[in-house]
Amino acid sequence: MRNEDFLETYGFSIEDLDTLLSEKKYRQLREKLNELNEMDVADYLQEMEKEKRLLVFRMLNKDRAAEVFTSFPYETQGEIINAINDRELKNIIEEIYVDDAVDLMEELPATVVWRVLAAATPETRKTINEFLQYPDDSAGSIMTCEYISLKKEMDVLHSFEYIRTYGMDSETIYVLFVTDMQRHLEGVVTVKDLLMNPYETVVKDIMETNIIKCTTTDDQEDVAALFNRYDLLVLPVVDKENRLVGIVTVDDIVDVMEVEATEDIEKMAAIVPTEKTYFQTSVFETWKSRIPWLMLLMISATFTGIIITSFEDALAACVVLTGFIPMLMDTAGNSGSQASVTIIRALSLGDVEPSDVLKVVWKELRVALVCGASLAAVNFLKIYIVDRSILGNTDISLAVDAVICLTLMVTVICAKLVGCCLPLIAQKIKLDPAVVASPFITTIVDAVSLLIYFTFAKMLLGIG
Amino acid sequence: MRNEDFLETYGFSIEDLDTLLSEKKYRQLREKLNELNEMDVADYLQEMEKEKRLLVFRMLNKDRAAEVFTSFPYETQGEIINAINDRELKNIIEEIYVDDAVDLMEELPATVVWRVLAAATPETRKTINEFLQYPDDSAGSIMTCEYISLKKEMDVLHSFEYIRTYGMDSETIYVLFVTDMQRHLEGVVTVKDLLMNPYETVVKDIMETNIIKCTTTDDQEDVAALFNRYDLLVLPVVDKENRLVGIVTVDDIVDVMEVEATEDIEKMAAIVPTEKTYFQTSVFETWKSRIPWLMLLMISATFTGIIITSFEDALAACVVLTGFIPMLMDTAGNSGSQASVTIIRALSLGDVEPSDVLKVVWKELRVALVCGASLAAVNFLKIYIVDRSILGNTDISLAVDAVICLTLMVTVICAKLVGCCLPLIAQKIKLDPAVVASPFITTIVDAVSLLIYFTFAKMLLGIG
Repeated sequence: MRNEDFLETYGFSIEDLDTLLSEKKYRQLREKLNELNEMDVADYLQEMEKEKRLLVFRMLNKDRAAEVFTSFPYETQGEIINAINDRELKNIIEEIYVDDAVDLMEELPATVVWRVLAAATPETRKTINEFLQYPDDSAGSIMTCEYISLKKEMDVLHSFEYIRTYGMDSETIYVLFVTDMQRHLEGVVTVKDLLMNPYETVVKDIMETNIIKCTTTDDQEDVAALFNRYDLLVLPVVDKENRLVGIVTVDDIVDVMEVEATEDIEKMAAIVPTEKTYFQTSVFETWKSRIPWLMLLMISATFTGIIITSFEDALAACVVLTGFIPMLMDTAGNSGSQASVTIIRALSLGDVEPSDVLKVVWKELRVALVCGASLAAVNFLKIYIVDRSILGNTDISLAVDAVICLTLMVTVICAKLVGCCLPLIAQKIKLDPAVVASPFITTIVDAVSLLIYFTFAKMLLGIG
Repeated sequence: MRNEDFLETYGFSIEDLDTLLSEKKYRQLREKLNELNEMDVADYLQEMEKEKRLLVFRMLNKDRAAEVFTSFPYETQGEIINAINDRELKNIIEEIYVDDAVDLMEELPATVVWRVLAAATPETRKTINEFLQYPDDSAGSIMTCEYISLKKEMDVLHSFEYIRTYGMDSETIYVLFVTDMQRHLEGVVTVKDLLMNPYETVVKDIMETNIIKCTTTDDQEDVAALFNRYDLLVLPVVDKENRLVGIVTVDDIVDVMEVEATEDIEKMAAIVPTEKTYFQTSVFETWKSRIPWLMLLMISATFTGIIITSFEDALAACVVLTGFIPMLMDTAGNSGSQASVTIIRALSLGDVEPSDVLKVVWKELRVALVCGASLAAVNFLKIYIVDRSILGNTDISLAVDAVICLTLMVTVICAKLVGCCLPLIAQKIKLDPAVVASPFITTIVDAVSLLIYFTFAKMLLGIG
């Protein structure tokens, strides 16, 4: 529910809440807040000034406070931790899921981390410390440990009793995991399976033993691909000995997919990815994420400079050629990036593999031929009619027009081939295609198109 | 489970299946296939030649065949429909979920659609026809109607009985919808709520009445944002009279997010988006999706041509300036696209709104100042040391170096401002930021950087 639907969903507006607060009708306010989704409570509190926010946050009961707490941005979480006492902190840290606690630890300043760990029970502290060991972007870093595990000898009736007893603290109760005494994962059973079978059925007989699972060190992008492929709600995470250590839930995967897509987009635009939102990133951090590629690409343009300088005489002999350099370079650049972006995305969705290189080149070659031919044809007429006749630039002879359009045709083909091959090569040698391909394509394609241009000019115009 | 894990998950390899098939041990093959996830069966069949595929597909029992069928690509689905008889077709079409059936109808040739509709029961036919009316990319187009609706007077025990009776055909049983006799949505209750309460509890007392929902015409991107914000598994879809007409499940949202991210990426790369995968798209279709922007951008480069031509005398007086045109245009283009891509993504994630324009401009201005200053400083030294001293291009005076670096500084600022404003303006006037912004930025930024370059050249070098 978006904020504009607030009144419609809840039957009262944000202004009504403000009125209750300013009139100090705290009991009524608390009742209303209990009706809201925790995300909406968090958003409402986020808009307040700090003192009021803390006042209202403390009105929430234990469960509710933990839910709202995890819905806050990290800054606000840090602020609240600094303001509450140890008992309140302990309540929160014991109540939230371990994946949220781990995310929190990774974002907070070290001093605050120590206070949080000190407030937690030894058991929670141990779990958090264990989970903090998993590498960034691994399955281990996004999993949580609040799941229900059954034993295979249990029947449906006992399973339901077990769920009723322990389900409240579990992140999901819809998929249950069957483990032996050493926590080895033996099977998976869903609540649907339990509901669709008689009470006396034994779990062993209805559990699925061919289990789709991942290990703690698997990349989160691969985990997301598994969810996508098999339409999963939950995926068990096992260690090297097939012991169940955690679960990943689909809501975390939705976040992963968003972050990964943003990262790919940023890399393609020659930006070093960050995980923060636009306004959370400081000017200096934004500069840091943008300057490396700008600098590198600026320096690498030295090559185009050298090429132009070495053909200075040709340009001086036929000055009109200079005017078409930007058009040729832009069109080549656009053609190349169309191909590279298409291939980069297809690689990350698994539609294309590096071994498909010949199939890809063959397809891009044909696309480039039709693209190049249509562009050259239109451009030939455009130059003749617009530039020469309408704009009256009589320096443009038919030969010059031909040089430009031949160059266009050949550079489009080169650009498409470079654009499709670079990401495949990058992937093959285990580099990130999005990082490697996009920025270099401009540099390579610029240089190639200038070389082709001047070569044709020398050949057909007899200059230089 | 990726293909490489096949043996590990199932305890037998794809080769074992092939052996059973070639030895005509059909019963054993069928048993093995029943152990596989339907996606893996579909992949296995997809690799076979057509006749064998049909043979094995027909071995599958009714439920299984429908599941495998929906996991095939559309081409294979069409092929199978053409090969099976009406009774088999009827089984499949009655067994699959209506959202899958609707997707199928939208992809199949008209003649095949008629045959499928003729094979369906009148009831299914009516539902499919209704669902086909919803606009592309709306909540209606991705919803399905296999859900369980309870009545608010039912108690937990009866609810479970009801689920046991009707749950088998429902796409999800974990979220249940409470409706009145006119199908108005009154509440939502989860299986977790039912399990955590005593059998005699009445649904009315535990159902959630503040319901997060959407309407049939809502855009699927907004629906995905709701799932993301509230960590939903299922979202009810209502019509204008608040009658429940369908549900959207999270597995479909995972697909939507992938498609929407791909679309955004394609638009930013000046490609007209398609929903097909790389190899599914023909050369002609690829050409069609790439040529419009290439053509438009090529034509729009006429402006840069005119600018260069009108400064021809200045260029002739100081030939060395030409060599730096590509560097200046590329750096400006990269700076602009960094800003625009960042803003486009932030808009689509809801981190930035068009009303934030002043905040955005203020931030980009400061980023542009530091980026521009650091680029200009490095470039000044680079030109002096590399181009002038090492490469021996003595035409480059300190004044020329100053012109280039001043231009660099100012164009980076202009490019960042254009880059951040264009998407915000596009969004404000209800155009797609990704489509409008990226391609035009190159054209605008090219023209602006040339104008700045020649203006500084005339001022500081006294030429033209």
